[in-house]
Amino acid sequence: MQILSGKDLSNIIQAQVKVEVAEWVANGGKQPHLAVILVGSDGASETYVGHKVRMCERLGIKSSLVKHSDEISEEDLLAEVERLNNDDDIDGFIVQLPLPKHINVDKVIETIDHRKDVDGFHSINVGRMAQNVPCFLPATPYGIMQILEHYQIDTQGKECVVLGRSNIVGRPVSILMSNNGNPGNATVTVCHSRTKDLKKHTLNADILIVALGIPEFVKADMVKEGVVIIDVGTTRVEDASRKRGYRLSGDVKYDEVAPKCSAITPVPGGVGPMTVISLIKNTVRAVKGEVYPK
Amino acid sequence: MQILSGKDLSNIIQAQVKVEVAEWVANGGKQPHLAVILVGSDGASETYVGHKVRMCERLGIKSSLVKHSDEISEEDLLAEVERLNNDDDIDGFIVQLPLPKHINVDKVIETIDHRKDVDGFHSINVGRMAQNVPCFLPATPYGIMQILEHYQIDTQGKECVVLGRSNIVGRPVSILMSNNGNPGNATVTVCHSRTKDLKKHTLNADILIVALGIPEFVKADMVKEGVVIIDVGTTRVEDASRKRGYRLSGDVKYDEVAPKCSAITPVPGGVGPMTVISLIKNTVRAVKGEVYPK
Repeated sequence: MQILSGKDLSNIIQAQVKVEVAEWVANGGKQPHLAVILVGSDGASETYVGHKVRMCERLGIKSSLVKHSDEISEEDLLAEVERLNNDDDIDGFIVQLPLPKHINVDKVIETIDHRKDVDGFHSINVGRMAQNVPCFLPATPYGIMQILEHYQIDTQGKECVVLGRSNIVGRPVSILMSNNGNPGNATVTVCHSRTKDLKKHTLNADILIVALGIPEFVKADMVKEGVVIIDVGTTRVEDASRKRGYRLSGDVKYDEVAPKCSAITPVPGGVGPMTVISLIKNTVRAVKGEVYPK
Repeated sequence: MQILSGKDLSNIIQAQVKVEVAEWVANGGKQPHLAVILVGSDGASETYVGHKVRMCERLGIKSSLVKHSDEISEEDLLAEVERLNNDDDIDGFIVQLPLPKHINVDKVIETIDHRKDVDGFHSINVGRMAQNVPCFLPATPYGIMQILEHYQIDTQGKECVVLGRSNIVGRPVSILMSNNGNPGNATVTVCHSRTKDLKKHTLNADILIVALGIPEFVKADMVKEGVVIIDVGTTRVEDASRKRGYRLSGDVKYDEVAPKCSAITPVPGGVGPMTVISLIKNTVRAVKGEVYPK
């Protein structure tokens, strides 16, 4: 059984990106610049944003953190987005989610210039992904595709079952796995809350991608021997034995499922660590005009 | 076995749209106006465009046919698209495909204002479809959804298998059938040229949507008793016994498959007749600002 370590892969890609950025700048390229808009003072959001900013620093990428109180009006936030759209020094930017309830998230995301939408949430990038043309992929699906590619998991013609149809993971990864490409070309089934005979589908999977957010949902009797599992779940579960009072749980009951797998992503250390580096990779693609020529 | 007649349904919807448009105009609404750009003199394209223009006339919708020779430059065609984008009298327009090879189709479609993209091909509309928010749906998938709705085919939690992953039918209909909605909420599997055990999937289908363009591909031994089949194929097959020298063939071997079905769309008279009325419905939605508020 092979452990698909996103932590290891992230470290490898970070080293590559660091060299890539240094060479790009040495050859006269503009230093990449990522901006992050953070609204309010949600603890988890501040932690995520901190990860992003620090990784930029380590890899030679300029970053700007634009903080606003959670009392900012929608109008002012949209004006801030427009300001970043028009700032030629900024190659890509994101609006850290969630946003306060008085702000229309869709409106904010649709206002982002899709050429700077390194989170891949703008409908133009989503549509281009579905049309299988160059675009910014959202971080988690992009991270999953990189794991499959790096660990040389054969996806061509394989039976792939995706549990979950969310806009940020299930839907995009199901499209990417089904598209003509490598990784890709799998026969993909999307299961969700309305699916009736779930076990029949999971037992048929050569590759099972689980993005439900339900701790330890997938049990050993639901998968076949030799399956490859990508576990996207990362839920905080109370655990008094841990110093911080919780542990991170995946959507797969790892101890009993892992022995049946040919390969599996652990939690933590699997898909999670791939998200920030995927955002960074999008930022580098942006400055180089690899998706949208400059 | 129920025949899902798109021809009948199109007639019903045409009657509804005619009343809807008349009432809208009587209440002071602007008469809907569809423009069609036709490049070159491809016989099939001229036929399709003729259908669209004549249906507009019958239903009280203004139409404009903008013809160009196949020698038009890409630059001039893009300028024509911009002209229609900026013409306030035009609520929606399409560029009839295919285009001559020297023109970049993607560039032309992306230049269309998505708020006037009644063919639903612009990446913003595709992305919004994948995100399950209001958008213009492409004509064939929209037609299929209307057939399922009108004939009250239960899709909730059903096993739906889609054969084909094209941008104009397979991919969008697979997303719509999987999205949270009604019709929708099916467990959808997308099969394509790389799928290995196709028959295993088709035999599992409660609803089978076939969009391959391969005449009579689906045989009786590939489906289970009681299946609902949507046959999107419409291929001209030589037939000396017909006056015009050909007949239209679906992707399903109808004579042997239909008796096993609980419901099936015939070819011709099934999905085909739904496409023009779906385009017209999008045009009416455009003038009313139902998708993108005016």
